[in-house]
Amino acid sequence: MKQNKYDDPEFFAGYSAMPRSREGLDAAGEWPALRALLPPLAGARVLDLGCGYGWHCRYVREAGAASVVGIDLSQKMLARARSLTADAAIEYRRMAIEDIAFASEEFDLVLSSLAFHYVERFEPVAAEIWRCLKPGGTFLFSVEHPVFTASGQQDWHRDAAGRPLHWPVDRYFAEGARHTSWMAADVIKYHRTVAAYVDALLAAGFAIARLVEPVPTAAALAAHPEWGDEVRRPIFLILSAVKAADR
Amino acid sequence: MKQNKYDDPEFFAGYSAMPRSREGLDAAGEWPALRALLPPLAGARVLDLGCGYGWHCRYVREAGAASVVGIDLSQKMLARARSLTADAAIEYRRMAIEDIAFASEEFDLVLSSLAFHYVERFEPVAAEIWRCLKPGGTFLFSVEHPVFTASGQQDWHRDAAGRPLHWPVDRYFAEGARHTSWMAADVIKYHRTVAAYVDALLAAGFAIARLVEPVPTAAALAAHPEWGDEVRRPIFLILSAVKAADR
Repeated sequence: MKQNKYDDPEFFAGYSAMPRSREGLDAAGEWPALRALLPPLAGARVLDLGCGYGWHCRYVREAGAASVVGIDLSQKMLARARSLTADAAIEYRRMAIEDIAFASEEFDLVLSSLAFHYVERFEPVAAEIWRCLKPGGTFLFSVEHPVFTASGQQDWHRDAAGRPLHWPVDRYFAEGARHTSWMAADVIKYHRTVAAYVDALLAAGFAIARLVEPVPTAAALAAHPEWGDEVRRPIFLILSAVKAADR
Repeated sequence: MKQNKYDDPEFFAGYSAMPRSREGLDAAGEWPALRALLPPLAGARVLDLGCGYGWHCRYVREAGAASVVGIDLSQKMLARARSLTADAAIEYRRMAIEDIAFASEEFDLVLSSLAFHYVERFEPVAAEIWRCLKPGGTFLFSVEHPVFTASGQQDWHRDAAGRPLHWPVDRYFAEGARHTSWMAADVIKYHRTVAAYVDALLAAGFAIARLVEPVPTAAALAAHPEWGDEVRRPIFLILSAVKAADR
């Protein structure tokens, strides 16, 4: 299933009101960890899978990328991205992640932020990304952490007063769809294990460069006291993988 | 701290009564997953860190290893291992994992089963293992999964009737000691994140060969119905890492 909730008007309105939509990357808690893993960008050709408003496309372009392709399935997201972008070297295309078919060895970097947990089968996507990366190229992505997605309820176990007691994990090895309620819509996310993400990368031929479970820094926690519970369980998983230059 | 609970008589008696102590590797749910990741053993020199009764030492020797060194800090464990072994090519030494200091490039395989969660600092151990492995050698180990160790209580959140509702995760990013009660003893385990295990391997120079979260097979579940809840959350993490031959 290729899900496109972002063209649902109510859902899009809710998403548009989120801090990361209004304020961009600086309002995304995991962005410093992702940014720290970006390879040198000068002259690079970059593909962004699930580009949304295009925040990452614009960042890598400003950091020196020669050209950027951002894909998304949502017309509303792409319209917003285009309206925010005045840069002929950034191209936004409407396309599902599952349908990418670029030239072999076209990109230096394939980037994706919080999109693959909407994709049912990650293995063929990883294989296709490996194919369209240049030798030595980097595949860097973030997803919701399997600890976060496992049970499907996506909320704390709370006491009678509503205070978070702990994060519930269940159905960890039952990979597949989780019907969650997010911004008044029934959203389908696909849970898979940490091992499944790593296995798909290794099976595609990648070397694992980093595995990061980002956590807010002390400075970020001071600026965002509402993130205090984020140190109690992982919410995001970031993987950086390299297509070996000698293959 | 170099912990040696296994020489506590009561603790040792409890451990000795466990199925994996009485019946060996076939009673250990994670063993098939670990065994599947063993490299070719013919003629290999193998180091087993935290060898306990020596089950793994004897397995790799029977599978063709030329010589095996098993280390453990517990005199009781080593005495049992020696009493069960009649093989001059297996040497058992009393030594803490934190104190290993073997010759450079001495081993083809360094193995460890469920021991590193007793070790406070994993990074220097990983670096020392990298040093004592031959180029092309494998470092293969299992630990209790960070999801299992995070909160410290190491038990399900249960309903009034005692039925497991879900596995509680808390304090995931608070790495360090967890005082758990196991077999009537206060045991200290060291929680670290999945990323910390992977980071330590990468920092030491290893390439990640596999990351596995073992889960009982359908056949194993049929034979061990008491393992039914093991599919609800990860309990073990297995990592296989390779010292690149070209370094």
